[in-house]
Amino acid sequence: MPSPLILVNLKSYKEGMGNRAHQIATAAQLVSRESGVTIGVAPGYIDLHPLAHHFAVPVYAQHVDGYEPGAHTGHITAESLKVAGAAGSLVNHSERRLTLADIEAAVRALHGQKLSAVVCTNNDITSAAAAALGPEYVAIEPPELIGSGVSVSKANPDIIRRSVAAVHAVNKEVKVLTGAGIQCGECVKIAVDLGTDGVLLASSVVKAPDPAAVLRDLVSKL
Amino acid sequence: MPSPLILVNLKSYKEGMGNRAHQIATAAQLVSRESGVTIGVAPGYIDLHPLAHHFAVPVYAQHVDGYEPGAHTGHITAESLKVAGAAGSLVNHSERRLTLADIEAAVRALHGQKLSAVVCTNNDITSAAAAALGPEYVAIEPPELIGSGVSVSKANPDIIRRSVAAVHAVNKEVKVLTGAGIQCGECVKIAVDLGTDGVLLASSVVKAPDPAAVLRDLVSKL
Amino acid sequence: MPSPLILVNLKSYKEGMGNRAHQIATAAQLVSRESGVTIGVAPGYIDLHPLAHHFAVPVYAQHVDGYEPGAHTGHITAESLKVAGAAGSLVNHSERRLTLADIEAAVRALHGQKLSAVVCTNNDITSAAAAALGPEYVAIEPPELIGSGVSVSKANPDIIRRSVAAVHAVNKEVKVLTGAGIQCGECVKIAVDLGTDGVLLASSVVKAPDPAAVLRDLVSKL
Amino acid sequence: MPSPLILVNLKSYKEGMGNRAHQIATAAQLVSRESGVTIGVAPGYIDLHPLAHHFAVPVYAQHVDGYEPGAHTGHITAESLKVAGAAGSLVNHSERRLTLADIEAAVRALHGQKLSAVVCTNNDITSAAAAALGPEYVAIEPPELIGSGVSVSKANPDIIRRSVAAVHAVNKEVKVLTGAGIQCGECVKIAVDLGTDGVLLASSVVKAPDPAAVLRDLVSKL
Repeated sequence: MPSPLILVNLKSYKEGMGNRAHQIATAAQLVSRESGVTIGVAPGYIDLHPLAHHFAVPVYAQHVDGYEPGAHTGHITAESLKVAGAAGSLVNHSERRLTLADIEAAVRALHGQKLSAVVCTNNDITSAAAAALGPEYVAIEPPELIGSGVSVSKANPDIIRRSVAAVHAVNKEVKVLTGAGIQCGECVKIAVDLGTDGVLLASSVVKAPDPAAVLRDLVSKL
Repeated sequence: MPSPLILVNLKSYKEGMGNRAHQIATAAQLVSRESGVTIGVAPGYIDLHPLAHHFAVPVYAQHVDGYEPGAHTGHITAESLKVAGAAGSLVNHSERRLTLADIEAAVRALHGQKLSAVVCTNNDITSAAAAALGPEYVAIEPPELIGSGVSVSKANPDIIRRSVAAVHAVNKEVKVLTGAGIQCGECVKIAVDLGTDGVLLASSVVKAPDPAAVLRDLVSKL
Repeated sequence: MPSPLILVNLKSYKEGMGNRAHQIATAAQLVSRESGVTIGVAPGYIDLHPLAHHFAVPVYAQHVDGYEPGAHTGHITAESLKVAGAAGSLVNHSERRLTLADIEAAVRALHGQKLSAVVCTNNDITSAAAAALGPEYVAIEPPELIGSGVSVSKANPDIIRRSVAAVHAVNKEVKVLTGAGIQCGECVKIAVDLGTDGVLLASSVVKAPDPAAVLRDLVSKL
Repeated sequence: MPSPLILVNLKSYKEGMGNRAHQIATAAQLVSRESGVTIGVAPGYIDLHPLAHHFAVPVYAQHVDGYEPGAHTGHITAESLKVAGAAGSLVNHSERRLTLADIEAAVRALHGQKLSAVVCTNNDITSAAAAALGPEYVAIEPPELIGSGVSVSKANPDIIRRSVAAVHAVNKEVKVLTGAGIQCGECVKIAVDLGTDGVLLASSVVKAPDPAAVLRDLVSKL
């Protein structure tokens, strides 16, 4: 069984920019080496290229538009992510929702550059729909738990179970992440035991005074 | 085998408002009775209630938002469509795209009112994704053929075949419509022979001097 | 000095649909006749035509798209509002924000049908920008007070003063409404004394067991 | 009178990424030094930091969101542009339209970081509205001429005249750029003679085999 993925979304947090982004990537690389667990980071666009080139952890963009290069001012192409050294991109995060047509185009554009797609969803039904697009990962985050400090693993294990089943009923190759309120090793363990392939998280690592300590705790039960 | 559905989208065409909307619904009712084929109409919101109450054809809204009643100024609730006497609604038309989360919420809201959902899509992959949401119909319209005067049945029968297969691989209960450039009985016949359950069309009926004549032609090979 | 406008937005409230919409319009007509104050209502699209035809109060749409009639599925044209008998429309309500280009097109489309535009804004600076589009009204609603139960008149009279000044610095012909938390006659009086031409409100009337009683209180100090 | 600004938008063009972005910035710096005319570039996010640090020309982002740092996945903060060394940002480009509230927030966020705002508009009325937001520049581009190969200076000098007048009637401090189809020195000269402070252009420079030659021609009549 492949290692789970711990994917840390730096959002636009003040504590996830510039030097802090480097500090978090340093912690991700360190704890990944210690534990053997894959730990990825998803920084802002400005930090994407430097992090991808200085660290041996997978670096994801937070968003990508499904456009070919062309007259698309202010948009992010998969081609530019490739040039920056990204491993892939989040798509349709709850803070950056896209139309169905645009999600499909984004996944297709990523695959055209041999990049991974992590499509974010809000429930088991949209997770099944996302699975039909053939991304590497579907990341299910119940919106009512995002930023709540209450872990989806504990508050709603059922939605994880149903999402894993719904995704695999459509496409067995698609892996499932879960997120929302994940902050300790036990949350991660429960999520993986429920059939997911890892977690997507943000503030618990990004805002931590010592990100390495939090990451060590997160992987401690795997 | 149940009758195919011919669904006429009146869009915001000048030729599809007010008296003309009544004239088109009259034609739909007449030809439906003559032929036994179900012919529905999707008028603007203002004409929804009058058409639903004066005619025995199914009347669809052109769009619905997946909101419960509440503080949602300028939005269309499924509840208001129910009150107006609608049979269902288009969702995610190419001229009114929605996020994946909003499409799912709209389908759910329609079902909560026992109304039918016709989710519009742009290719076979998004059709599969839409099928995972469990609507009554997925309506596939290749964007490059919309308003082109070139029928999808003739120009790209393959996309119809692939969409029917993709939809049924995800959910066998979901019916498939196709659209874009449909304007004659032969186009409809081909679409149905390729496995669809009917067609979604607009200008060829709405802009016709004699909508009944066009509808008669459309159902003539069924 | 012309009478102020009390504009009641029925939103998508359950208590503002169908029979309740008629009851609120009845109350608006009654209290308007008693007091001489203009009281308008902005119902959902489905109730627009019946209310406009059964009542002598101005009926506004909650939203309009700036499109000419044409291939615009699921959109609301000014032309359809005219046919329905509307007096005008809200534009860019906080629950239905539009791009700047679309706001300008909507105001222009309304004026092409000799309908009134009420452009909603969130602060004094966007109010000045909206005034440059030449609508009949700019309606300033501080987002932090919407639905708060705290009246903008009392909580932030300064934003009203600054908005009136900013709007008139750009275009003296544009009238100013204010809203957010307005629920009593004193709030309305303060708003008018600060230079506005009336108020935009919703839940305090729509959810009231006796809308006429609330409306009577609202106009009592004018 | 200060020097006009020639602002080159690299969009998401293949010919404006990576090495090509450096080549265009090199040309901008060279021709700017030769001519004394200010020439800025607006590259994709990935190239923003490198260009800002390697070249002495002003580097603009193509888009910015008006968010403070925080939980805004996939969005661009003014703070991140500041860190990257940008001089400012385009806002509301025709390929990336924003709501009025978001344009105002973006201008405010840029000013909070002492960065310049170039707000793009589509006609004289929206230009006046944009001027009310107090950006450094309003850039008027008639949508029907964008990418047409027909210069706004020659095809529609009147819209330039009206936009300059409309902007200055609202706020005399705001400078006006114009764009759409600009490709030669004479177009630039006409635009400046009509009262603008420069031009916004894209493909004529970005897709040129020799960007320096095109830039030399563009500034040749100033």
